[in-house]
Amino acid sequence: MVRIKLKSIFKRRAAKTGLPPGSLVYVGTPNNEPVQMLLMEYNLDAVREAMLQQVSEIKNALGKTQVTWLSIVGLQRTDVIKQLEETFQVHAMALEDILNTDHRPKLETNTENNYLYVVLKNLYYNDLKELQLEQVSLILGTGYVVTVQEKAGTAFENIRLRVRNGHGRVRKMKEDYLFYALLDSILDSYFVVLDKFNDKLERFEEQLIERQYDPDMLQHLYDLQREYLLIRKALWPVRDVTYTLLRLETTLAAKGIQIYLKDLHDSAVQTADVLETCRDMLANMVNHYHSHLTQHMNAVMKVLTIITTIFIPLSFVVGVYGMNFKHMPELEWQFAYPMLMLLLLAIALAMLVFFRRRRWI
Amino acid sequence: MVRIKLKSIFKRRAAKTGLPPGSLVYVGTPNNEPVQMLLMEYNLDAVREAMLQQVSEIKNALGKTQVTWLSIVGLQRTDVIKQLEETFQVHAMALEDILNTDHRPKLETNTENNYLYVVLKNLYYNDLKELQLEQVSLILGTGYVVTVQEKAGTAFENIRLRVRNGHGRVRKMKEDYLFYALLDSILDSYFVVLDKFNDKLERFEEQLIERQYDPDMLQHLYDLQREYLLIRKALWPVRDVTYTLLRLETTLAAKGIQIYLKDLHDSAVQTADVLETCRDMLANMVNHYHSHLTQHMNAVMKVLTIITTIFIPLSFVVGVYGMNFKHMPELEWQFAYPMLMLLLLAIALAMLVFFRRRRWI
Amino acid sequence: MVRIKLKSIFKRRAAKTGLPPGSLVYVGTPNNEPVQMLLMEYNLDAVREAMLQQVSEIKNALGKTQVTWLSIVGLQRTDVIKQLEETFQVHAMALEDILNTDHRPKLETNTENNYLYVVLKNLYYNDLKELQLEQVSLILGTGYVVTVQEKAGTAFENIRLRVRNGHGRVRKMKEDYLFYALLDSILDSYFVVLDKFNDKLERFEEQLIERQYDPDMLQHLYDLQREYLLIRKALWPVRDVTYTLLRLETTLAAKGIQIYLKDLHDSAVQTADVLETCRDMLANMVNHYHSHLTQHMNAVMKVLTIITTIFIPLSFVVGVYGMNFKHMPELEWQFAYPMLMLLLLAIALAMLVFFRRRRWI
Amino acid sequence: MVRIKLKSIFKRRAAKTGLPPGSLVYVGTPNNEPVQMLLMEYNLDAVREAMLQQVSEIKNALGKTQVTWLSIVGLQRTDVIKQLEETFQVHAMALEDILNTDHRPKLETNTENNYLYVVLKNLYYNDLKELQLEQVSLILGTGYVVTVQEKAGTAFENIRLRVRNGHGRVRKMKEDYLFYALLDSILDSYFVVLDKFNDKLERFEEQLIERQYDPDMLQHLYDLQREYLLIRKALWPVRDVTYTLLRLETTLAAKGIQIYLKDLHDSAVQTADVLETCRDMLANMVNHYHSHLTQHMNAVMKVLTIITTIFIPLSFVVGVYGMNFKHMPELEWQFAYPMLMLLLLAIALAMLVFFRRRRWI
Amino acid sequence: MVRIKLKSIFKRRAAKTGLPPGSLVYVGTPNNEPVQMLLMEYNLDAVREAMLQQVSEIKNALGKTQVTWLSIVGLQRTDVIKQLEETFQVHAMALEDILNTDHRPKLETNTENNYLYVVLKNLYYNDLKELQLEQVSLILGTGYVVTVQEKAGTAFENIRLRVRNGHGRVRKMKEDYLFYALLDSILDSYFVVLDKFNDKLERFEEQLIERQYDPDMLQHLYDLQREYLLIRKALWPVRDVTYTLLRLETTLAAKGIQIYLKDLHDSAVQTADVLETCRDMLANMVNHYHSHLTQHMNAVMKVLTIITTIFIPLSFVVGVYGMNFKHMPELEWQFAYPMLMLLLLAIALAMLVFFRRRRWI
Repeated sequence: MVRIKLKSIFKRRAAKTGLPPGSLVYVGTPNNEPVQMLLMEYNLDAVREAMLQQVSEIKNALGKTQVTWLSIVGLQRTDVIKQLEETFQVHAMALEDILNTDHRPKLETNTENNYLYVVLKNLYYNDLKELQLEQVSLILGTGYVVTVQEKAGTAFENIRLRVRNGHGRVRKMKEDYLFYALLDSILDSYFVVLDKFNDKLERFEEQLIERQYDPDMLQHLYDLQREYLLIRKALWPVRDVTYTLLRLETTLAAKGIQIYLKDLHDSAVQTADVLETCRDMLANMVNHYHSHLTQHMNAVMKVLTIITTIFIPLSFVVGVYGMNFKHMPELEWQFAYPMLMLLLLAIALAMLVFFRRRRWI
Repeated sequence: MVRIKLKSIFKRRAAKTGLPPGSLVYVGTPNNEPVQMLLMEYNLDAVREAMLQQVSEIKNALGKTQVTWLSIVGLQRTDVIKQLEETFQVHAMALEDILNTDHRPKLETNTENNYLYVVLKNLYYNDLKELQLEQVSLILGTGYVVTVQEKAGTAFENIRLRVRNGHGRVRKMKEDYLFYALLDSILDSYFVVLDKFNDKLERFEEQLIERQYDPDMLQHLYDLQREYLLIRKALWPVRDVTYTLLRLETTLAAKGIQIYLKDLHDSAVQTADVLETCRDMLANMVNHYHSHLTQHMNAVMKVLTIITTIFIPLSFVVGVYGMNFKHMPELEWQFAYPMLMLLLLAIALAMLVFFRRRRWI
Repeated sequence: MVRIKLKSIFKRRAAKTGLPPGSLVYVGTPNNEPVQMLLMEYNLDAVREAMLQQVSEIKNALGKTQVTWLSIVGLQRTDVIKQLEETFQVHAMALEDILNTDHRPKLETNTENNYLYVVLKNLYYNDLKELQLEQVSLILGTGYVVTVQEKAGTAFENIRLRVRNGHGRVRKMKEDYLFYALLDSILDSYFVVLDKFNDKLERFEEQLIERQYDPDMLQHLYDLQREYLLIRKALWPVRDVTYTLLRLETTLAAKGIQIYLKDLHDSAVQTADVLETCRDMLANMVNHYHSHLTQHMNAVMKVLTIITTIFIPLSFVVGVYGMNFKHMPELEWQFAYPMLMLLLLAIALAMLVFFRRRRWI
Repeated sequence: MVRIKLKSIFKRRAAKTGLPPGSLVYVGTPNNEPVQMLLMEYNLDAVREAMLQQVSEIKNALGKTQVTWLSIVGLQRTDVIKQLEETFQVHAMALEDILNTDHRPKLETNTENNYLYVVLKNLYYNDLKELQLEQVSLILGTGYVVTVQEKAGTAFENIRLRVRNGHGRVRKMKEDYLFYALLDSILDSYFVVLDKFNDKLERFEEQLIERQYDPDMLQHLYDLQREYLLIRKALWPVRDVTYTLLRLETTLAAKGIQIYLKDLHDSAVQTADVLETCRDMLANMVNHYHSHLTQHMNAVMKVLTIITTIFIPLSFVVGVYGMNFKHMPELEWQFAYPMLMLLLLAIALAMLVFFRRRRWI
Repeated sequence: MVRIKLKSIFKRRAAKTGLPPGSLVYVGTPNNEPVQMLLMEYNLDAVREAMLQQVSEIKNALGKTQVTWLSIVGLQRTDVIKQLEETFQVHAMALEDILNTDHRPKLETNTENNYLYVVLKNLYYNDLKELQLEQVSLILGTGYVVTVQEKAGTAFENIRLRVRNGHGRVRKMKEDYLFYALLDSILDSYFVVLDKFNDKLERFEEQLIERQYDPDMLQHLYDLQREYLLIRKALWPVRDVTYTLLRLETTLAAKGIQIYLKDLHDSAVQTADVLETCRDMLANMVNHYHSHLTQHMNAVMKVLTIITTIFIPLSFVVGVYGMNFKHMPELEWQFAYPMLMLLLLAIALAMLVFFRRRRWI
């Protein structure tokens, strides 16, 4: 079992202390890889894809087709993010949220420049079965969607495929549907994570039920609790986000999209539901394990007590006849030894009967 | 006691990941049995029943009598479910919910095509005393009710009987009353399940009170906790469903039906009440069992301590007179042996008095 | 201590499963005693009492005096209850609630026929000090109050006395005041039950504080927890009932009655308050008892450890000089025996000092 | 440490059962001391104080000066309280609340006769360091304030001083400010109690941290928990009272008084805050103490185990050479005894190394 | 690890008891250092700084430039604070809050004189790694901001730098932005504290995971719990403050500032989030540590039981042949001794197999 670093739960927002509000600082792990910008324009008839060098290049595309989707992968170059301010009039405070990869999931609307953005966590297990947490931001404006990710994950790959192949409704609908489809794809991935986490719980439970206890179980249980905390931290606030989205009065989302947003909120409520069940199952397991420890100690103590209480009186008696007094008449008797042995046997049997009555054996 | 599979708590919604929203996928156990479609038309005077081959056949019936009830059993053929979209203008997203047998109980209204649907869990113990969870969906439209179940249970059999025989009010009233009666019958079955679960709790409690402890009790308690979680997961959200139903402003439910919906909500509140009491009783039992373990260990330890502390000093004394020193005057005394025996008896009695004072014996 | 049957907590609502809504079924213990119907009519000047055979006889009385109070004792004959439907136009669903003796406390209003009814629990300790739970329903209509009880308790006896003797305000006021006075009398009886329950808690606490522990305390504590659950189940929802009553906009309650309803709600809030304190006290006691068990085990273990660690090394030493080696020079020494004895004493004292330092003795 | 009687937590409201609503019954400890009635009239220029014999005497004073304050000490004579009904038109139900010294803190307004009253608890430690709980009621009407206390405490003495000496704003303002000042003085005294209670917690914590454990600590902890329950019972509902006061729309409180009521509510919120911190601290202490017990048992068990496991094998070996077999060649060897001694030493050392490795010593 | 004094959690608000409301009393540690008053006036073009002797000197400055910021450090001279009343018409009750350094974080508005003030805690670790809690009050009026601190901390130093150097937006904007920037700087410092606290949690967790248990861990855990309580006490109410600020309808904050206040509230929500995760982590650690103690005791008990149960029967057997009976035929046998030794070995091996089967070794 791979341990999750606590650092990944509490990333260093503190690094930004003292800077003016709206300062664009990337708080994640710095790296030198280039930032990828993939442009995707489409309407019912056609799809065009292009890799951009500058955000500003998008201006040529905007408004020409029905939907423009700019996908930015990598946050290490803050100047790229800054271009969003000029191109889409996204406020510096919003960009600060996007770059602050430790941000709590949230939804913000800007009525002035008429866009809204959502900050979420993408959650997945990597090849080493470590839980990975990556921030994803989505900006929805008139005619365009911008997505910003830390790493090139596979989160949006299936949406891209659907756009290319014209599967489902995505090509027939506007940018609000794309926005919904992207969010839906993230929430779908939560169920994959919860599923794998539940598999872990199940395997642990199996061990508990089969009574294959080993000293590492305590540590394993603790790791499961930590993993749960990390998952909850990422998933729990999503319900508020989808609820706000559902209640939003905005021109950005057409009326027909409402049924999809409801579905989104339903999914978020269901993840919260599963999280609560996980929490209760973990609590039950912790209790069960603790009770098992006590029960096991009882069993150990009983063995000790039974052996000790049987043999200690017997040892005393044989000790008596090991004394060297001159005048001990029993020592001279003919059948003293076998009779004593029978007596000791009787004592031992009486003890056993006593323990039997108490249901200890 | 039969164990509930964890899988039945967290069914594989993850299987749908990556598919476009509104994709009709059956996530349950696939099987090849045919899907049953039973049509029931009735008004005050007459009842007609028929097995349909296609959903579309229903069109001939719709609107001819007062109430049309289409009962579909089996979700394995998604094409059958798909026909609901064409026939009743049920939205694809609603059908997705109906097919997703892991869905949380919910109520959704569609004002456009004027129907509402409810997704609930049917809960019952099968012949092996295993708790079974089956999804039931009900669609209420003008003049018709459609019910969709996974398996042919007995959930709606008594309603069917009442319709056939004209018992109760069902034949005198419209489709909204049928809808209510079906929901009421599901909620009634919850009380049967809670009753049987309470019987289990009672039997366990009886064991606790009679002090017939055995090592399996811990496992048994854990199984009860899991069963509780599964029941709560199915029942808890029902209260929200009935509350929404009660507050709904819709033309689908006549005003006279309000009193029945209130009754429905009352039942749901009562199940929630019973669930809370079950939770508290389980918590008390867990605590009680744990305290019992500690108390039992105390009893074991006391026996060990009493026997050990009485005999260890005595053994020491007899050990002293088992030493082989040449010059040990006591060994020569005439009455040393009986006097020593008396001394040992006195020590033992003093010990017993000491334990008596401490109320250990 | 008499144990409460779990059955009394979860009565068999399940018995009604499968019946049409509004079916009048008595779910309590069946018996053959006749149903008592006591009519009481009064105004400021006069009181008339009569035993009725049929509910319909009441029609002669209704409206002649200021207030008519029909008190029905016994639910076993559902036909009697059914007559309420004809005489007072009480809806069948309300009668179903009244007969379902496992119903949660609730208040329902019927604006059509202008009546309201309240279902409550009467709670008292019987002569065997067993907690008894009995359902009481009160119907308030224009000019009349109907009360329905399971058994002839003393719950309303003092109100009857007040009406007969003209004590207090009851004769000067209308049926709404009578309704209030009846509810107030039930809530008053809750304080008697809480008082007796608190006496039990107190006695248990006294035992805890005096350290008169005995093995039955654990069971006793568990019984107190169950009794608490039963009391809470009956009392907790009453607060919602009185709150609804207070907020009700109805012509049934005159404006002047408002101050009394506030008082009623205050009482209900106070019972909830006392319940919460009871819960916390029980939790504290459970914790305290458990800590005591652990502390007691510590004390037992210390005795065992002290005795064992003192005598085991000594026994070893005397064992050494009990060996039969030919060449053991010490055995020949003149003062070996007394010197060894002194040495052993020194070891024992050193041990004692060690334990003293560790504050074990 | 003096123990709080449980009776003081649950006073006998039950004593009133069966009496008509509005019956004036004093439920506290009866005594024969006379009831004191102190009248205080003042405006900016003058103060007049007088001891009254009858409440009705106040009529001569009412309305002559700006503010009239009647302070009644002692509840044992219900006839005195009854006079408030005639003189100030205070409703009998309000007087019942005032006399019921077990009442929950509450605020009630009477718009008809335009007065409001507040029931609070006065909380203080007496000279024996016992926590005392006394009910205080305040009635605010146009031009007058009436305060009713059980015992002559010092609660309002400093307000009286301020009125006499013209300190602060009290003489410049109206009866609403006096009302506020009296409430504020009660809330101030809560901070004194919380402070002393925190001192107790601190001292206990000090003991925990210094590891000066003694067997009475468990009982002491339990007493702290009970004292906390008593304080919470008196203080917790006060927040609701001040909140209601703040939101009240009444002519009794001038607009300028609003800022003071806000301050009052702030104080109440702060007491609730401190209470919560106390609760968490107590919970931490309970946990800490329990963990300490377990840790201590670990230490005891280790000593027992180390001593036993070292000497029991050694004792066995020396037992072997204490056997009386004729043919035991080792017994004849020249250096058998010292060699055996060395062997035993080696065994003991090996054991110690083993325990060292396990970090037990 | 340095311990936080409980006194710093519950400062002596009680000291003020008995004084009239609005009395200006400094409840902190008294000292004789002078109170510093730094005036900072600026607009887009220029900045002027001056040390004032009297608050009244500020009148010359007010309104001349765009923003006036008066920063007061030190609360020991209440006369200085009193001058705020005359100069800015701040109400005495507000000044009382500012001086009461134990006040709960809160926001108050005064519509009459059009100002609002916020009381917050400044939280930081000093050089001794002790957590320090200092009260900071901010008053926002038309054209000015007044900040009042207990000690000259570095909390606002970076804001001062930004004003001087014209970094960020501060010089371009009005006093409301300055007010926001100051609050933002305090909230930023909370993340620094939470970060350091999380480092402590991490180090403790590392110890738990590496199983480097030592007896001080229990105490250390308790200290972490106390530190958590102190941090929560300071941070938790901040969310209410920022929420009120966000919802405020006031002319003091321009509309453009709304986006910054939202950001502020986001930060406060995030601190609350981190606090909750800390609480859960602490709870997990406490549980884990306790389970470890029990598990460790199991291990100790097993060693004791194994050693004892193997050697006690063996000792008994050798004791038997140490008896001095005249007639014990085995003693004469030629190979009795080696055969007995083999028998004992067999018994020991059987015991070991038994323990192996039970998975104890």
